[in-house]
Amino acid sequence: MTATVQSELISAIRSIPDYPKPGVMFRDITTLLGNPKAFRRAIDELVHPYAGTKIEKIAGIEARGFILGGAIAHQLSAGFVPIRKKGKLPHDTVRIAYSLEYGVDEMEMHRDAIQPGERVILVDDLIATGGTAEGAVKLLKQMGADIVAACFIIDLPELGGRKKLEALGVNVRTLIEFAGH
Amino acid sequence: MTATVQSELISAIRSIPDYPKPGVMFRDITTLLGNPKAFRRAIDELVHPYAGTKIEKIAGIEARGFILGGAIAHQLSAGFVPIRKKGKLPHDTVRIAYSLEYGVDEMEMHRDAIQPGERVILVDDLIATGGTAEGAVKLLKQMGADIVAACFIIDLPELGGRKKLEALGVNVRTLIEFAGH
Repeated sequence: MTATVQSELISAIRSIPDYPKPGVMFRDITTLLGNPKAFRRAIDELVHPYAGTKIEKIAGIEARGFILGGAIAHQLSAGFVPIRKKGKLPHDTVRIAYSLEYGVDEMEMHRDAIQPGERVILVDDLIATGGTAEGAVKLLKQMGADIVAACFIIDLPELGGRKKLEALGVNVRTLIEFAGH
Repeated sequence: MTATVQSELISAIRSIPDYPKPGVMFRDITTLLGNPKAFRRAIDELVHPYAGTKIEKIAGIEARGFILGGAIAHQLSAGFVPIRKKGKLPHDTVRIAYSLEYGVDEMEMHRDAIQPGERVILVDDLIATGGTAEGAVKLLKQMGADIVAACFIIDLPELGGRKKLEALGVNVRTLIEFAGH
């Protein structure tokens, strides 16, 4: 990806100081999503290494990962699998606890959503501490998925999420970085 | 759309009796989303009347409308606008109350997400009583959107949602119907 594309994506993101709490700079991707050129560019840049390879499923993390994951699944002609907060899926699920900044929550996936050996890409908008993504990776592995990559538009490298996923053997793809959190 | 395509989509949907409560037949689209052919078919069928026309924004209703809306925005090279449950968007919002089966909730959208006169398609997975979609239509109109259509994969016509939207002057597009609720 060229520096021009990176700066195009960075300038499409809105930074909101002191949200959701004082001292935090929130990176708001809704302005990128709402910009047709930037949205298309972000999706195309995320998926181009996988075009022409066999990808069976895109697993998207609720809720912003659904927007990107839906677009990527359509672009790669893959199926889409939602990873949701607990209690929202209507059929048999597998569930895992994961760490949040302020505690623990649980996420789940339908038990029949992935067949062993299926090639899967995990998608979310941003990787920070990586707690949510780590939970999703563990769920996918538990179901026998072959995780081809985990894709995010934004990396906050100081928070260590990318390293956490790489330590689990996952190939991480991100487009832009911001310092701080 | 041919009867063959309709039966292909219908057979990709899982029906779950007595969910979320006794007497309700829940139509689970996750099996359709996870099926690459059916997912692509559903998106392509929903959007083909709008291919080549100018659509600036796709507004998707949280959370399943995000999956479909992301795919449709990418397909039509439009921007994506999330309509979320209250308290989840980080910037200035407009908010509206809407009726649920068991009460009232509020949804919101960023105030700067739509410019007056922009051509918008509203997207969700299913229309039942239409309470959520009606709220979304009112929000979009309040922001001056030109609502080209509201698109849903599934219509439960006995519950009257389509008529509710049509009474507001909205063109409704759905792919398949189920009797009952």
